[in-house]
Amino acid sequence: MITGKAIPSKVLLIAVIGGAQCSVEEAALAETVGRELAKRGAVVICGGLGGVMEAVCRGAVIESGLTVGVVPGDDPRMANSYVKVPIASGVGYARNIAVVKSAQAVIAIDGDYGTLSEIAYALKGNIPVIGLNTWVLSRNGQQNSSIIIAEDAVDAVEKAISLAKGLKVG
Amino acid sequence: MITGKAIPSKVLLIAVIGGAQCSVEEAALAETVGRELAKRGAVVICGGLGGVMEAVCRGAVIESGLTVGVVPGDDPRMANSYVKVPIASGVGYARNIAVVKSAQAVIAIDGDYGTLSEIAYALKGNIPVIGLNTWVLSRNGQQNSSIIIAEDAVDAVEKAISLAKGLKVG
Amino acid sequence: MITGKAIPSKVLLIAVIGGAQCSVEEAALAETVGRELAKRGAVVICGGLGGVMEAVCRGAVIESGLTVGVVPGDDPRMANSYVKVPIASGVGYARNIAVVKSAQAVIAIDGDYGTLSEIAYALKGNIPVIGLNTWVLSRNGQQNSSIIIAEDAVDAVEKAISLAKGLKVG
Amino acid sequence: MITGKAIPSKVLLIAVIGGAQCSVEEAALAETVGRELAKRGAVVICGGLGGVMEAVCRGAVIESGLTVGVVPGDDPRMANSYVKVPIASGVGYARNIAVVKSAQAVIAIDGDYGTLSEIAYALKGNIPVIGLNTWVLSRNGQQNSSIIIAEDAVDAVEKAISLAKGLKVG
Repeated sequence: MITGKAIPSKVLLIAVIGGAQCSVEEAALAETVGRELAKRGAVVICGGLGGVMEAVCRGAVIESGLTVGVVPGDDPRMANSYVKVPIASGVGYARNIAVVKSAQAVIAIDGDYGTLSEIAYALKGNIPVIGLNTWVLSRNGQQNSSIIIAEDAVDAVEKAISLAKGLKVG
Repeated sequence: MITGKAIPSKVLLIAVIGGAQCSVEEAALAETVGRELAKRGAVVICGGLGGVMEAVCRGAVIESGLTVGVVPGDDPRMANSYVKVPIASGVGYARNIAVVKSAQAVIAIDGDYGTLSEIAYALKGNIPVIGLNTWVLSRNGQQNSSIIIAEDAVDAVEKAISLAKGLKVG
Repeated sequence: MITGKAIPSKVLLIAVIGGAQCSVEEAALAETVGRELAKRGAVVICGGLGGVMEAVCRGAVIESGLTVGVVPGDDPRMANSYVKVPIASGVGYARNIAVVKSAQAVIAIDGDYGTLSEIAYALKGNIPVIGLNTWVLSRNGQQNSSIIIAEDAVDAVEKAISLAKGLKVG
Repeated sequence: MITGKAIPSKVLLIAVIGGAQCSVEEAALAETVGRELAKRGAVVICGGLGGVMEAVCRGAVIESGLTVGVVPGDDPRMANSYVKVPIASGVGYARNIAVVKSAQAVIAIDGDYGTLSEIAYALKGNIPVIGLNTWVLSRNGQQNSSIIIAEDAVDAVEKAISLAKGLKVG
């Protein structure tokens, strides 16, 4: 038993999702997102591979943040160099579910169909999704406004952390 | 060994995806899709639950078609009454991946975020997706035209079967 | 709606598990299991690959039985030639869960650690497991007698079908 | 880019597996295992629920260790109070695979069929398994000696860390 000592609180996990390949501009954006998350004490969770996933981890690590990468395969060594805690899901791209469901909010940076699947799972689970140049959804002629648009990296991080804590975002 | 007897060819599997709850009109549409698929010898694969999934299986069964339902949980008895071969995936909504990846083409009827995740996984895997009143995607201000729009149930089925066989659809 | 026509009952699914590589004797045993299952109207479900999985499907197909193969990857074409309904799980070896959870009983033929994981999941879910030259389990010095030992292929099939139907096996 | 600063090395992850319900003695054993792992700088990964999983996390937290819990469902709040980094796998008991595949070595404490499935997946992946009063396996009349027997908690931890680092254990 732990006596005379508070049980440590769980960390605040923010997922950052986006392509395994990305442009220089997207990588810079992701790196800034990672830095700003780490500065605010949030832990980055991502899919653990390259592109946006690597850049966001690099940013977080520069600011001494903790990074979790959930890779598709059986081998944690597939995680990029900036992942401190690699999780080998063993379930292929079903790991996309773990990436978003473990988080209190999700920041989507551009991204392809894999990112779209993650956005879908997050929204299905009522986990807030903040978008930076990412997918726009509509159905039956009506635009879906569930993805909250951010103006830049700092705005995305501030919105994500506020929403993760259950605060309203204006 | 099988001698003097050809190895039987694998069946043609077409996935039909859509909401676990749906309107009367959508159910009628799904039932027609199921009938038309079965008439052409295709096997229906779906998520095995209610709504669009149940209606499409009912349609297929009316025409004596085979129906496969991949349910999220551990118990095949969760499948609707019109599923002849229930698969209990045991992996929750990661079963969405199995539904589309097992198919040679996918027909999406309306649907919510679960359906969106299935569309995303299908497109990521280059499996043709035919849409009936379903999601419309755009990214970076450009509409994504990967979902092939069908006019009605018969059109959707004909497009799905042509694309499943590797034929071009005009 | 289906009028004047009974809803078709679901099929009886029996899982057959074992190594992707196997000896000639094991393949012959698996083929006989497949034949005997098909003769009794049961549908074979397996992991869809080679070895025991291929042999049991071949046996079932010889007797015009239906065979379902749940493969680990994203591509249903990975299934062996005797699988009529290939399911691409997309979740790697988590597909072992689907193989056993979809079945009303499981027959284990020899097998390695993959087979052991399937036995474990089946027993956890109270699905009867019948063993032919397979794993023997004990814990804390006590032998675990959950795996029902069969004497030969016919005995295994008869026990599996009886147990699948909820009958006691003496 | 990170300049003038070494990329941080990945953490050493040791999985501890065992029942969600356990005796007082097993809980004490698991707690000691957690303490000894944390003292040596290893990060504990487990299935995140109660019993052995909770006790090992409690032990690690007492020594200020990091704990990762991969829960079966969609909600990270299902993790026990001593999990600092909860991962919501969303894939049910397929999360057993992630628990062991993410680790460099596995310590099994007693446990039921779920634990057996984890042992099977670990051995299939050539990840060392150290056993404390856990399953004993045999096949075709021959005992399988893949599970390395430990005498007590400290012995288990020392063996796990040595094997995780690729050292031989006498």
